[in-house]
Amino acid sequence: ADVKKIAVIAGDGIGPEVVGEAIKVMKKTEELFGFQFEFEHGLFGGIAIDEKGTPLPQETLDICKNADAVLLGAVGGPKWDNNPKELRPETGLLGIRKALGLFSNIRPANVFDCLMEASTLKPEVLEGTDLIVVRELTGGIYFGEKFRREGANGEEAVDTCVYNVQEVERIARQGFEIAQTRRKKLASVDKANVLETSRLWREVVNRIAPEYPDVELEHVLVDNCAMQLLRRPASFDVIVTENMFGDIISDEAAMLTGSIGMLSSASLGEGSFGLYEPVHGSAPDIAGQGISNPIATILSVALMYRLTFGYAEAAQCIEDAVKSVLDAGHRTGDIAVDKSKAIGTVEMGDLIIAAL
Amino acid sequence: ADVKKIAVIAGDGIGPEVVGEAIKVMKKTEELFGFQFEFEHGLFGGIAIDEKGTPLPQETLDICKNADAVLLGAVGGPKWDNNPKELRPETGLLGIRKALGLFSNIRPANVFDCLMEASTLKPEVLEGTDLIVVRELTGGIYFGEKFRREGANGEEAVDTCVYNVQEVERIARQGFEIAQTRRKKLASVDKANVLETSRLWREVVNRIAPEYPDVELEHVLVDNCAMQLLRRPASFDVIVTENMFGDIISDEAAMLTGSIGMLSSASLGEGSFGLYEPVHGSAPDIAGQGISNPIATILSVALMYRLTFGYAEAAQCIEDAVKSVLDAGHRTGDIAVDKSKAIGTVEMGDLIIAAL
Ligand SMILES: CC(C)[C@H](C(=O)O)[C@@H](O)C(=O)O
Ligand SMILES: CC(C)[C@H](C(=O)O)[C@@H](O)C(=O)O
Repeated sequence: ADVKKIAVIAGDGIGPEVVGEAIKVMKKTEELFGFQFEFEHGLFGGIAIDEKGTPLPQETLDICKNADAVLLGAVGGPKWDNNPKELRPETGLLGIRKALGLFSNIRPANVFDCLMEASTLKPEVLEGTDLIVVRELTGGIYFGEKFRREGANGEEAVDTCVYNVQEVERIARQGFEIAQTRRKKLASVDKANVLETSRLWREVVNRIAPEYPDVELEHVLVDNCAMQLLRRPASFDVIVTENMFGDIISDEAAMLTGSIGMLSSASLGEGSFGLYEPVHGSAPDIAGQGISNPIATILSVALMYRLTFGYAEAAQCIEDAVKSVLDAGHRTGDIAVDKSKAIGTVEMGDLIIAAL
Repeated sequence: ADVKKIAVIAGDGIGPEVVGEAIKVMKKTEELFGFQFEFEHGLFGGIAIDEKGTPLPQETLDICKNADAVLLGAVGGPKWDNNPKELRPETGLLGIRKALGLFSNIRPANVFDCLMEASTLKPEVLEGTDLIVVRELTGGIYFGEKFRREGANGEEAVDTCVYNVQEVERIARQGFEIAQTRRKKLASVDKANVLETSRLWREVVNRIAPEYPDVELEHVLVDNCAMQLLRRPASFDVIVTENMFGDIISDEAAMLTGSIGMLSSASLGEGSFGLYEPVHGSAPDIAGQGISNPIATILSVALMYRLTFGYAEAAQCIEDAVKSVLDAGHRTGDIAVDKSKAIGTVEMGDLIIAAL
């Protein structure tokens, strides 16, 4: 049988709780669809710092490299926030992206009709919002040379933002290709009126655009994008952008949906391998209480099924199950209007499994 | 008599129209308060490219250097968008900031109660929003070395982000000082979990913070800031950040107020000299029709009076006049709910002058 290897890195805070429910869902689909998964767990983030002295132990990296897909919970917490750089959870996150060659971060930001009221945007503005941010993940100012030096005016710090043609081209193609499967609109976000990397970005995007004649391409300056997301969120389909802008724009887009506890993400490299994780963080303030929302992680499994394994039917089945549970009025505390009626993490997981 | 020299660079698009009304207001205050202004006009932006072959002619720069304050309309337009870098309006904007040493950009984002419905945010979320973004304006990735080179994988582009201790310190102090005159809360925005310049930024901010014990300091990561602005805009007082992040965050903040046609800005250097301009752009689509909104430019005059000249009473008087005209229901097209009742640029200017 075709056994798929899943590396599970639950991480910190609510990570283990939400990943636990996602695994339950995966196991249920083994029964329902005849899939076979082999789960291997690895330490990552804060817990790995505590137990192994590094946020990304070689062992964990090996488990990931050996797997067909990675399921990640969440990392970080105040406990490690003041650690030196090499001993911080984020350093593990940047390290794993680079080591696994995950150059593309896919962040859907769509609105769940039944959660529309949770957004701070007016419903009539938000209505129909369904966009995907495609963020370059292994280049730019995140990975360029960084250092301190003595300058003419004393100490200074330097970060370097570098992009080569090939890096831009592969992420831009991904943007165009994803747009082709959707509403066929691509917004390429840059700051070409100021940055050289953005000018290169725009040149490359324009050069390959004719290969995707069915996709309507728009160039949007990043400052303008931050505004237009607020003004006309529903008009965006796919947004493609570089690493730093993508960090900011994808979080803004996620927040405006009002459904941040519901959003999943995929980080992809060449081939079908991918790392899947919820957009929300490790929420250390509610960790261990069994009240966190597992939906984003469960939907990350659906994304994994679709993008890495081609299990489209099972993916749809998971998404439908989530929707039906929400439509029936079940809510975890983060999305409940009446907090007294909120259900727990495990209860939500069980309801979704029952609805599968 | 104490004659103040004002450099007027009306620029492109609606620039000349809105600046015209602002000058009318200034002249009225000469009468009312006994001020004396001497206006000198300079070409800048697209029009300077057309007439002088450069977006920032030396002559214009001299007029500005010779003045006590600069009043700027707006620059740019599609006509010049595909020009080479040296012949683009934005290049003039970056050039004038650097040449005049305008290291601090002050962008108030406050909500006009009577325009609350113009925002895409829910009124209950927006209510009470009154923040100022203090953006570093002459450093960072905007002004670092930029170039192309042949890399191992073909052509690549490089931008360099540099900050020294002194640059961070002077803008951080401005943030603290402005916070002291307001609700005494400062949010310093950076990406210290990734960038070396942000780590330097945070160190400097933390080092000087004890000198401002009355100001409550919060460090916010830029991606989180993009989210929190949407979730709890009213909780921010002063936000201080570096050039690139400030570009994005200040535009997001401006848009969420729903009052972008109303927002003014100041760019300051050492001493009292400053450049004042509306936040909105040159709006080439409506230029020359006499329908643009002059309020942001008129409020920029109020900011000039307050920050450069210490004319606090007259500044208040202008702000009150604007408020009373709005409260009386007068609207230009951009902010009118019933567009058929919209008034023109000159009419709006005249009403404000009458209300002074
Ligand atoms: C934790 C941090 C390094 C990371 C990033 O900036 O990429 C996070 O914000 C994200 O978006 O995954
Ligand atoms: C036109 C552009 C160079 C400029 C900037 O990015 O600073 C503008 O967006 C601004 O905010 O004044």
